[in-house]
Amino acid sequence: MHLDRLRRTRERMGELSVDALLLSVGADLPWLTGYEAMPLERLTMLVVPGEGEATLVVPRLEAPRVVERPEVFSVRPWDETEDPVALVAGLVGPAERVAVGDRTWARFVLALQDALPRARFRSAADVTGPLRARKDEAEVAALRRAARAVDEVAVAMRSRPFAGRTELAVQRELADRMREVGHRRVNFAIVGSGPNGASPHHEPGDRLIGPGDVVVCDFGGVVDAYCSDITRVYVVGEPSAEVRDTWAVLAEAQERAVRAATVGTPCEDVDAAARRVITKAGLGDRFVHRTGHGIGLEEHEEPYLVAGNRLPLALGHAFSIEPGIYLPGRFGLRLEDIVVATVDGPERLNGAPRDLAVVA
Amino acid sequence: MHLDRLRRTRERMGELSVDALLLSVGADLPWLTGYEAMPLERLTMLVVPGEGEATLVVPRLEAPRVVERPEVFSVRPWDETEDPVALVAGLVGPAERVAVGDRTWARFVLALQDALPRARFRSAADVTGPLRARKDEAEVAALRRAARAVDEVAVAMRSRPFAGRTELAVQRELADRMREVGHRRVNFAIVGSGPNGASPHHEPGDRLIGPGDVVVCDFGGVVDAYCSDITRVYVVGEPSAEVRDTWAVLAEAQERAVRAATVGTPCEDVDAAARRVITKAGLGDRFVHRTGHGIGLEEHEEPYLVAGNRLPLALGHAFSIEPGIYLPGRFGLRLEDIVVATVDGPERLNGAPRDLAVVA
Repeated sequence: MHLDRLRRTRERMGELSVDALLLSVGADLPWLTGYEAMPLERLTMLVVPGEGEATLVVPRLEAPRVVERPEVFSVRPWDETEDPVALVAGLVGPAERVAVGDRTWARFVLALQDALPRARFRSAADVTGPLRARKDEAEVAALRRAARAVDEVAVAMRSRPFAGRTELAVQRELADRMREVGHRRVNFAIVGSGPNGASPHHEPGDRLIGPGDVVVCDFGGVVDAYCSDITRVYVVGEPSAEVRDTWAVLAEAQERAVRAATVGTPCEDVDAAARRVITKAGLGDRFVHRTGHGIGLEEHEEPYLVAGNRLPLALGHAFSIEPGIYLPGRFGLRLEDIVVATVDGPERLNGAPRDLAVVA
Repeated sequence: MHLDRLRRTRERMGELSVDALLLSVGADLPWLTGYEAMPLERLTMLVVPGEGEATLVVPRLEAPRVVERPEVFSVRPWDETEDPVALVAGLVGPAERVAVGDRTWARFVLALQDALPRARFRSAADVTGPLRARKDEAEVAALRRAARAVDEVAVAMRSRPFAGRTELAVQRELADRMREVGHRRVNFAIVGSGPNGASPHHEPGDRLIGPGDVVVCDFGGVVDAYCSDITRVYVVGEPSAEVRDTWAVLAEAQERAVRAATVGTPCEDVDAAARRVITKAGLGDRFVHRTGHGIGLEEHEEPYLVAGNRLPLALGHAFSIEPGIYLPGRFGLRLEDIVVATVDGPERLNGAPRDLAVVA
């Protein structure tokens, strides 16, 4: 698998005239080698020349963690008093067009530019992004497992009390439950209650949830290296007619966007499909973000479902579809599933009920 | 407090002839503004010109999370279809010497370089690193709280059984206990048992801990924004004479390094103080990493206690002292405390017993 990915990566490097690919923290490196760099001040970097052997430059004290794949890369551990940037520059040699991993720390990018004054740098996402965006069968299966696990949590919360608890308490429960159902890492758990729900990325706090509150719960993490991400809304007691009507608009918008997400459809058209429904209901200016993002080894990756992105969806593209409606000072609503573009059309990976869940 | 930090930051920008400071993900931004950027593909960036107002460029859907400090910075939210890099470039204007936050993603560094072709870039750590390294009283108090919390976990583990459990199970317990005693985030929990302990950054796995095993536990996280970090060693049953003797060497090395960590002493001399003891015992080549790292808002930050770093310790410097001895295929030992350089000499913030803990 890794060897095949390396082959396709080199092919694309050729197409883009990239002479050397440099990968550090972020998901490109584990995708290509199975090894994840620690996000530390000690540089870990894979050097992939257009031809010849790939080399993983790694701090000596992390070298024992590397599962070696000699057919894919060799390992060059560096000692505490060596200069890893000089090592990488030596391996890059006379290469003039260098692509560097998207999340590589600025300090290393700048040091590499100093050490390679003749090289021009571009983002490695140009090389790896489109390859990583199209998931193979095993990857879709992993995303499905992650989706099913997080579904369990979303369903369990339907019979849990919300009133009288703080957002932070609900956030902790979501995190604990995610770990219980197999997440090895919790990436985030947004709990926005009442007016706080109108802030899409609300940081859960000490607000006490009370009767009538609409509570937006958006949570995800990592199961077997692949990410989960789901949003469901819980209402304490019977929702008002306004909340119910607004939810009906949102659910319709989400459904339209999912149906639009077929192979060949430009990403921005999926966004437009959701936006059209919400705009028609007079709420267009309350849908303040894009419709979705790709998902895989990273929580957010290509493709992005946003106005202006004309990229056509391809087989194996996996992404969130998550329109929202936010009424400042009052409440917010968002509905999110992970969807894969398949030969049979769009497939939702999440199966938790998509209604407004009435809770105590 | 933030205003004072901004003043000192600008002073240092003047000394280094930096025209504009650009901060994104990482600890510089919360240190200066109280706001932490989300590590996402949507750019958050504070632009600090040498003179004039600082501006926080932030995705509109994250803007409600910003606690505004108009005396320190103003907020410029950007919409999903705007180009945040162009916005930042506009705010930088004709500045020629730009310092960019250390952990800013490569994609944004490269995009900013394209948008500001006349500017020369350097790492913002040159500006903020020395300022952040010297902790004020409130910061030392926060580090002390974090140390005391993690001490509780280290002490509790002394009466817990290890034999018959996997490294992963012990790791989970460490993480749970850290959260219980007030950590809002667990950064890491290394559990290296038997031969695995000889890999300093061992990734805990399914290895079953058994009689006679030496278990290195190195764990830390975040309490009230500041980091904890401690290493203690637990032995299942009475340690062998060799383990006991090696521990005595290590404990002596750690004690010597702590005593050496006085204001004015070069960082590398603290490293040498520990290394001398271990080398004298004939184990110099088994101490494969530096003696320590600074700690504060980040788990690892300036100053680094490593050969070659001639920086003299200053009042308020806070750092780990953590020599280790690693015998491949057999066992490892490491002993770590957080220490602050004070007017009265080095102060250990951790108080958990420093002996080899015998466990069941």
